Amino acid sequence: MSDQSSLRSLFCPSSIAVVGASATPQKIGAVPVSLLRKFGYAGDIYPVNPNAPEVQGLKCYPSLQSIGKPVDMVVLAVPASLAQAALEDAAAAGAKSAVMFTSGYAETGPDGVLQQQRLAALATQNGIRLLGPNCLGFMNVRQSIYATFSPAPNAGLVRAGPVGMVSQSGAFGAYAYSMARERGLGLSYWITTGNEADLDVADCIMWLVADEDTRVIMVYLEGCRDGDKLKHALSAARAAGKPVVVTKVGRTGSGAEAAASHTAALAGNDAVYDALFQQYGALRALTIDSFFNIGYALCIWAKPPKNRNLGIITVSGGVGALMADDAEEAGLQLPALGLEAQQEILKRVPFAGPRNPVDVTGQATSDPQLLEQAATLMLKDGAYGSLLVFLAAAGTSDALWPHFKAFAQKLRAGFPDTPLALCSLFSPERRAELEGLGCLVFADPSAAVRAIAAISPRPAVSEAVSEADASAPADARTPLPHGPLNEASALVVLQEAGIPTMQFQIVRGAEAAAAAAESLGYPVVLKIVSPDITHKSDVGGVRLALADAAAVRDAFDAIMQSVRDNAPGATLDGMLVAPMIRDGVECILGVQRDPVFGPIVMFGLGGIFVETMKDVSFRLAPFGREEALRMIDEVQARSLLQGARGRPVADVGALADALARLSRFAVAMQDEIDSIDINPFTVLPNGRGALALDAVIIRRHDQLATGPGLT
Amino acid sequence: MSDQSSLRSLFCPSSIAVVGASATPQKIGAVPVSLLRKFGYAGDIYPVNPNAPEVQGLKCYPSLQSIGKPVDMVVLAVPASLAQAALEDAAAAGAKSAVMFTSGYAETGPDGVLQQQRLAALATQNGIRLLGPNCLGFMNVRQSIYATFSPAPNAGLVRAGPVGMVSQSGAFGAYAYSMARERGLGLSYWITTGNEADLDVADCIMWLVADEDTRVIMVYLEGCRDGDKLKHALSAARAAGKPVVVTKVGRTGSGAEAAASHTAALAGNDAVYDALFQQYGALRALTIDSFFNIGYALCIWAKPPKNRNLGIITVSGGVGALMADDAEEAGLQLPALGLEAQQEILKRVPFAGPRNPVDVTGQATSDPQLLEQAATLMLKDGAYGSLLVFLAAAGTSDALWPHFKAFAQKLRAGFPDTPLALCSLFSPERRAELEGLGCLVFADPSAAVRAIAAISPRPAVSEAVSEADASAPADARTPLPHGPLNEASALVVLQEAGIPTMQFQIVRGAEAAAAAAESLGYPVVLKIVSPDITHKSDVGGVRLALADAAAVRDAFDAIMQSVRDNAPGATLDGMLVAPMIRDGVECILGVQRDPVFGPIVMFGLGGIFVETMKDVSFRLAPFGREEALRMIDEVQARSLLQGARGRPVADVGALADALARLSRFAVAMQDEIDSIDINPFTVLPNGRGALALDAVIIRRHDQLATGPGLT
Repeated sequence: MSDQSSLRSLFCPSSIAVVGASATPQKIGAVPVSLLRKFGYAGDIYPVNPNAPEVQGLKCYPSLQSIGKPVDMVVLAVPASLAQAALEDAAAAGAKSAVMFTSGYAETGPDGVLQQQRLAALATQNGIRLLGPNCLGFMNVRQSIYATFSPAPNAGLVRAGPVGMVSQSGAFGAYAYSMARERGLGLSYWITTGNEADLDVADCIMWLVADEDTRVIMVYLEGCRDGDKLKHALSAARAAGKPVVVTKVGRTGSGAEAAASHTAALAGNDAVYDALFQQYGALRALTIDSFFNIGYALCIWAKPPKNRNLGIITVSGGVGALMADDAEEAGLQLPALGLEAQQEILKRVPFAGPRNPVDVTGQATSDPQLLEQAATLMLKDGAYGSLLVFLAAAGTSDALWPHFKAFAQKLRAGFPDTPLALCSLFSPERRAELEGLGCLVFADPSAAVRAIAAISPRPAVSEAVSEADASAPADARTPLPHGPLNEASALVVLQEAGIPTMQFQIVRGAEAAAAAAESLGYPVVLKIVSPDITHKSDVGGVRLALADAAAVRDAFDAIMQSVRDNAPGATLDGMLVAPMIRDGVECILGVQRDPVFGPIVMFGLGGIFVETMKDVSFRLAPFGREEALRMIDEVQARSLLQGARGRPVADVGALADALARLSRFAVAMQDEIDSIDINPFTVLPNGRGALALDAVIIRRHDQLATGPGLT
Repeated sequence: MSDQSSLRSLFCPSSIAVVGASATPQKIGAVPVSLLRKFGYAGDIYPVNPNAPEVQGLKCYPSLQSIGKPVDMVVLAVPASLAQAALEDAAAAGAKSAVMFTSGYAETGPDGVLQQQRLAALATQNGIRLLGPNCLGFMNVRQSIYATFSPAPNAGLVRAGPVGMVSQSGAFGAYAYSMARERGLGLSYWITTGNEADLDVADCIMWLVADEDTRVIMVYLEGCRDGDKLKHALSAARAAGKPVVVTKVGRTGSGAEAAASHTAALAGNDAVYDALFQQYGALRALTIDSFFNIGYALCIWAKPPKNRNLGIITVSGGVGALMADDAEEAGLQLPALGLEAQQEILKRVPFAGPRNPVDVTGQATSDPQLLEQAATLMLKDGAYGSLLVFLAAAGTSDALWPHFKAFAQKLRAGFPDTPLALCSLFSPERRAELEGLGCLVFADPSAAVRAIAAISPRPAVSEAVSEADASAPADARTPLPHGPLNEASALVVLQEAGIPTMQFQIVRGAEAAAAAAESLGYPVVLKIVSPDITHKSDVGGVRLALADAAAVRDAFDAIMQSVRDNAPGATLDGMLVAPMIRDGVECILGVQRDPVFGPIVMFGLGGIFVETMKDVSFRLAPFGREEALRMIDEVQARSLLQGARGRPVADVGALADALARLSRFAVAMQDEIDSIDINPFTVLPNGRGALALDAVIIRRHDQLATGPGLT
């Protein structure tokens, strides 16, 4: 049985049994029976409770087996003490899926984890898909399936629509249901996953990707235990063209601590989640407000803006400036209106701001046609991906309302491919009417700009500076040599993986050093090679800028003397001789294994930027050149690669290729390598490539065997 | 007549004439007459219009003089062609103040500026205070004075309350009035200033500072032309304990361009406004939403939180984590609950998160007393400045509402000094009831956290590392020497102003250089002194780390030779000899004159941080040590001063003193100096002080005479 068809019995059951069904309204076993009946579920409902012959007017069964018919889905609304027996009963009765409200499992500690594992095993053995435990259940909005004990639907139903909502948290789920109703979002499904003994958020995303009524997926995430599954689900959503909006808690130290203290899920490293969402095209919302604003925009605008060019019309120049600020900060462009069109607008309103924002001034309220003229002038050349119109308080005016409505109708009819957002104070009724026409309506102009930015296409990466990496990708799988890895062997391994490294030789005597220097070309550097010495400069183990053979010989002897004095016990593997490379921009490339998401690649510039400014970017391995370019674009110090401070423009293309290759290598070697640190990786002027100058590779068993002292 | 009493005739007139009064409802001359009558203005209303014997049932006068009685305030609702005559009529009739709606002045270009200056002069000569032109007028909410043509009050009145609202923009003003009504903010005054021919935003702030009904001032600013006046007004508001919330448009390049294209006000450098608001304690809101959130919080909470410690109670652990994220990002602290109190909570809810956020779980909905218990446990030791309670969707529950209301009542009664915010979906009626108890109500938890952060006391500055500057401040006014200022004379000037500079000597021969080096101590640096050479290293004009007399002599000769070869025409003022100082953290201190706000002091670390990362902070001169410490705290790279990367902790106290002294010097010398650049200013390890190593001072006439080439 495929995953999707096994989930069909859960999410679209033709019969539902509620174990623990109750007549007492507040009981969690009463709510689903009541909701299913009240809102007209079309399938069979079987209350199960050995202590009642009848529940809410329905015949009640003492057990699932006693129903005597197959049941698609079972809602388990019983205390933990009865849950195991109830699940056994469900298995014996041939149920295909179950929703388990019961709490008292992984969220309570190690004992609970064990209990939960037993439940999950029992379900799996019997082919039962399980949602929960410790969850608020789910709703299938179109089919009126309320497998939940949330009373939220009683305060008013959300309308059916294209948004599939998945929340790990029940409390957040209930809040989100009510928010969706308030904000006019239409839902297809509403699902809470709780402790995720079987089904997790990723499974639910996959279900929604396959569901044809779902066009937008909104996810509230506290943590993830199966990174590959989540990556796969986000990829599938992207491939299906279904945007995923996500709120993930635990961004900061305080938040992560709070999350870890309450949930059984791992909070994980937030930067890794950021990388995941960036890379897999999920739209991360940092606040609940923005979560709903983005979801709302996607819900109304089935077709997103075709580019990041925003046209703004405003009745207030000042608020126009404020929206321009927001647009710039959100990475939207505000190209100016064509000069002829500007003249047209100035003919009608001599003191208008005619560029973009187009400030039609308060005159728009005495001359409502003006809006339509300005909007038509803006949209007819097709340059703007979306149009935002700020009307201040005019949305409250009864006199102007017919004009605004006609304006929206004409614009939607004339320019159906250009999303239109209106920002003013409209009553809920007027708002709904405008939304019905396909317009977004916001009260706050900044929120409008940010939502438009979030759903506009991602910005293109900056032009790669050199040619694309044309060479065939090196075989990323490179056997590691036996024995400890010193910097020389680390560089050789990376070179074999296709990552460019400097030329160097390892020598064991002063004469050999001089000969190596002659063949490599002056000036050179000499560096002691030892697995035992981490900070080579501190023990006099490095000499730079050696200009001739005599200097090399002297330096060799001086280094040996100094190292013997300062690090008497260290194993010495020889001396590294390499050309001194001065005109590059020094970067750091790193790899770390994340317990959930596997190898993560880090990029940053020179030491101070990484350590002091935390100016780094991350990606999940593997990734290609374009993603590498985005990664480079994300660090603030990127201008140093682009020729800032009188430097030549650096070979960013070579850097991107190296990052992409490193990411492939990291995946291929993830069972053997724990971390890689290439520092410095120098990026030469454009056309001259980029080179690893030093590297540390930590094997997985290295770290386990020797502890962090060596790293 | 004092400013305040002259403004009383404007803002609290006992009689109002409306010139251009009309019976046609849409006309701008009809609205004020209609609003004044409809909402019960108690004074006399005189419509003035030569073409009507009667307007809206009132006797209409052909001119102001024909009224035959003194009129306090005149509303000018006439076209620009009639405005001058109307103002002359007002002067002849002895009016004390006027509100001028008329547009067509400074906003239209140079001609309009001239017309506007004429109007302003006419008003001043006749002792008339003028609001506008090109404004939407004002409202005095308590006295029902509607000197506006905004129809906004017709859609519903705002309630009278403690918030004075000032907007340069009329359109924003109208929107803000409606927003205030929607959000339940109570207003004292609502004022739009338009082109500010006479009264500007600062005057209105001063009026509100003096107004006893106003407790909070909300300002929408597009630009400012009189920086001193605005500084004075913000200081006065702070001294009176009246918080000022401000939205200033033009944050980014796009926004500033949009602002400049539409308004007659100068957009100015946004970083300077940021410094101004920081320094004068105004709360800057970056979005309109946050503008109203902060205003709302101040409106409800007459007494702000006593510290930045936030206690959070949540029914959802995940949203608790999200609020913790927001709190950390907003600079609030979340100290954990005491261990005993944690035990108490765990006794009642074994799986609660007992620290902070306190996660009472969904159990709070079945056991509503739990909230009160948790809140009491949190608040009784007095550690938390404010308490935020997240109730998810439970605010919509009819069953829980009585409990929530009782909870709010008990908490307000038991802990009246600790502000309480509730976050849930409440109906407008319930929200109003809770607000009536003095609770803040938000739908969005992030918005709640940010508003609390904004109104909490400013964070304390980091402990000054060395003793406070105990020496008497040097006389900041230091005469500049005649002739061009080279680096040596610049350093001398700064030294006289009390800013520590390195010891140095200027010499004119190799022997003198060696003698100077002997007396200063080795190693030394030699540097050519010339007003004509900006980049001394490029012409071989610098030698570092000279270890003995012979090296100094050689270096002297080598520099002279190199400079003669590479900069043959340059005037040479000698050679600077100074001890080489190596173990400091290099900073940049700068001064620039802003056309509106006078001298601005800049602080940043080393070249890369300033140029590449734009990691700098600004303050308006003058300021004291504490403000200087804040300024240092604001740069991201500050950790380099705090002992990052194995450095010793730097003498931040000495740095702060130097910044404060530089600021006093900048003010004292503002008529003579255009800019100062101290680069590097090196901060030595703690206890050893800080020193200017190089400086450029540009005189005001220097720059005018020689252009930017020299700077």
